[in-house]
Amino acid sequence: MAQRRGLAIRVDFNNALSMKVGNHGIAPKVVNKWQKRIDEIHAELQWEFNRGGLAFRWLPYQKPTVTKVRDVAKKLRGKVDNFVVLGIGGSALGNIALQSALKPRFYNELPKSERDSNPRIYIEDNIDPECFGALLDHIDIKKTAFNVISKSGETAETMAQFLVVRQMLKDALNEKFIKNVVITTDPESGYLREIIAEDGYKNVLEIPPGVGGRFSVLSPVGLLSAEMAGIDISRLLAGAQAMDKRCKKSNVWDNPAYLSALVHYLADTQNGKTISVMWPYSDALARLADWYVQLWAESLGKFTDPENKKGAVGQTPLKAVGATDQHSMLQLFMEGPNDKIFTFIAAGRYRHRVMIPKAFHSLLGAGYLGGKTLNDLIQAERRGVTLALTEAQRPSITVTLPVINEHTVGQLLLLLQVQTAVAGQLYGINAFDQPGVQAGKDLTYAQMGRRDKASLKAEVARKLHSDRQYIL
Amino acid sequence: MAQRRGLAIRVDFNNALSMKVGNHGIAPKVVNKWQKRIDEIHAELQWEFNRGGLAFRWLPYQKPTVTKVRDVAKKLRGKVDNFVVLGIGGSALGNIALQSALKPRFYNELPKSERDSNPRIYIEDNIDPECFGALLDHIDIKKTAFNVISKSGETAETMAQFLVVRQMLKDALNEKFIKNVVITTDPESGYLREIIAEDGYKNVLEIPPGVGGRFSVLSPVGLLSAEMAGIDISRLLAGAQAMDKRCKKSNVWDNPAYLSALVHYLADTQNGKTISVMWPYSDALARLADWYVQLWAESLGKFTDPENKKGAVGQTPLKAVGATDQHSMLQLFMEGPNDKIFTFIAAGRYRHRVMIPKAFHSLLGAGYLGGKTLNDLIQAERRGVTLALTEAQRPSITVTLPVINEHTVGQLLLLLQVQTAVAGQLYGINAFDQPGVQAGKDLTYAQMGRRDKASLKAEVARKLHSDRQYIL
Repeated sequence: MAQRRGLAIRVDFNNALSMKVGNHGIAPKVVNKWQKRIDEIHAELQWEFNRGGLAFRWLPYQKPTVTKVRDVAKKLRGKVDNFVVLGIGGSALGNIALQSALKPRFYNELPKSERDSNPRIYIEDNIDPECFGALLDHIDIKKTAFNVISKSGETAETMAQFLVVRQMLKDALNEKFIKNVVITTDPESGYLREIIAEDGYKNVLEIPPGVGGRFSVLSPVGLLSAEMAGIDISRLLAGAQAMDKRCKKSNVWDNPAYLSALVHYLADTQNGKTISVMWPYSDALARLADWYVQLWAESLGKFTDPENKKGAVGQTPLKAVGATDQHSMLQLFMEGPNDKIFTFIAAGRYRHRVMIPKAFHSLLGAGYLGGKTLNDLIQAERRGVTLALTEAQRPSITVTLPVINEHTVGQLLLLLQVQTAVAGQLYGINAFDQPGVQAGKDLTYAQMGRRDKASLKAEVARKLHSDRQYIL
Repeated sequence: MAQRRGLAIRVDFNNALSMKVGNHGIAPKVVNKWQKRIDEIHAELQWEFNRGGLAFRWLPYQKPTVTKVRDVAKKLRGKVDNFVVLGIGGSALGNIALQSALKPRFYNELPKSERDSNPRIYIEDNIDPECFGALLDHIDIKKTAFNVISKSGETAETMAQFLVVRQMLKDALNEKFIKNVVITTDPESGYLREIIAEDGYKNVLEIPPGVGGRFSVLSPVGLLSAEMAGIDISRLLAGAQAMDKRCKKSNVWDNPAYLSALVHYLADTQNGKTISVMWPYSDALARLADWYVQLWAESLGKFTDPENKKGAVGQTPLKAVGATDQHSMLQLFMEGPNDKIFTFIAAGRYRHRVMIPKAFHSLLGAGYLGGKTLNDLIQAERRGVTLALTEAQRPSITVTLPVINEHTVGQLLLLLQVQTAVAGQLYGINAFDQPGVQAGKDLTYAQMGRRDKASLKAEVARKLHSDRQYIL
């Protein structure tokens, strides 16, 4: 327990409050006034959870899932050199976040022995033919397992990738090719179920009902590639459980997810902070910020009145990486419109320490660095930028992971998911659907000749017309 | 000339105009009204250029620079296995953009023979000790050249990295270590000039006066790593020259940079489009979008009245990648606040073609894909999303590169730089400074013990205090 407490994430709200950033922050007494609404939301979520809803909050407790994932991994381990995820959006971003946070930087380039004989991992979340074609040229297909992830089995990008590699595997391995495929999909419905039956795949994992893509990282969707890379998925779930407990308290001052949701919501709707910047001071967590971008954007960017397509809400999430983006976006953050709230992600300590040797002592621009570490420097920069923004009345929250590991990353993922669900309630929208993406899909299907969209085809061609006088 | 015309970038403004997106677009007659202001800006820029200013527009014509860069590259080629850039912000993002756009995806993992004996390339734009430490463990320092890039020679991150590798090189190579270092800095001033003198470095490249980081990609800053990777830098500059000519026309309907600047400016200031989304449908161009993010944010995010710190302006740039982000941010883009203008980057054709084999013909969710290519699919998706956004009255511009190569990337880089300079004039700010980043730097220096900031130190410590009751 002591050890676990030592790993607990800290969330510091000081710089988002009015005492530090004046009218651009939230006054604690305003937070107190919202406790009543938070109590209602708490009861709504509790009711939803008790009837089996809020499926993502059940995931950290699914021991049978861990067993199932490990069984599949065991069948592949040692047999393949490459493990390729075919998925996009919520079927990829959680995988990428875990891999990037918890694996060594040059993992794929390490000799096999230094990877504990685990395979190289590739997460293919695009259909850019240059990029996907390069992968196919790069890998030995016979020594590669592909994890196809799609709940509906009709994600055009993933199905297209799958058709490509399925034929290659068949050509290379004949009927044994099904051993190199793992399918992660809905337990009952969808086109992949029909394909499983037709081809006879044995390696099949289920996405629990009610778990949407962007809330699926702690399901088999994110866990299998993690397990294949040697990431301790039990510890990841233990971290998520620890945070889940903290997020069950109804008092907003005791519940970091509730307070963060409320601060973001009020910052947006009352103080014009229409942009939420997620800013880890860590390269390893940069891709977790991409995962947050989907979570926040796709959950909250909605019409409050969907029937009449009115009442658009939702903050725009923006990824930044420290210290790098001090030299890219900081100028705008400091002196551009005060329309942002920042979430810094700090590491209490880093998993590596790099000394800066003493040299050029007399040179003002370099000498002072000698004898310090890169660790000192990046921490000083993060604190310096946080303070500079605070003094410019630009609000921020700082989330500190004592160290980046499975347990703390598990906590962070759960924290941000609960925060998103609560923010959805505050905005009065459904955080778990994504009706706005259908139009683009239909227009794609029509162009690609999908038979149920044939009637759209001519119309699409007509509408795509561009007036030449406005093309330069 | 015919060939060059075949490579010309097309910029399609239709979907940003009122005929397509109503009040959320710009009416052509409004554009015409602004021609007078554009004429003034044109004259101002012309005057500036003629007196030697607007230094970035001189870069495409610097043949001696190409010679100098190639001379340095020749000395290193064959002698080193790794080429590492130490730089941040404008000293890194241009390098990364070029490498990512113009090199094969798995370049660093290819056997040397498939890299034409060129070295692996690493661009280190962070001081995260986990990430930089991993690099130092990964490479053979004796076989590595380091390109230190800093105009002032006091960029804390770059100088810290440099002190670390300098000592390692000295330990490994004794006095010969200077051969493994290339310094790119101001021709006359700055701390790196003193270090060049003290250590006796011979490989030195100059950043021309007046060229700031985010406008330096076509200077030795971006060109050396490109040359080392076998990228044709002459062709890159030829592309930039071709676009420079197009950007010299004063009529806004003939000049894609002028029209794009004006459309962005009006979208922001008159239609509330406070966010500029840069959205390549290409993995190779994803990092070029990061370069644009710095260019747009750091150039335009300013006070129009800097003395009184009033009148904050500037759009927030946001990177998206197609098709990937259709499954991440598209929901927000379609149904969230209508506060964005999109720039799609399309490839006329991709450098790779991937067939989708026929299978599962009877399955609605997969069968229609067979016999098409990934190329067909990604183009259909880009057009589908563009049309869906247009129908939702969300304005966009589409920039088409006939193919991604040195010539078209050179054009694109110059286009966006001129567009940024003109937007700066429209906003009435100085696009070439970055006064807002100094406060954070000073606060960092104070914590790190730089002697000219000693007086700040105690104050910083006091101000960093966080009230424990607001830490959860």
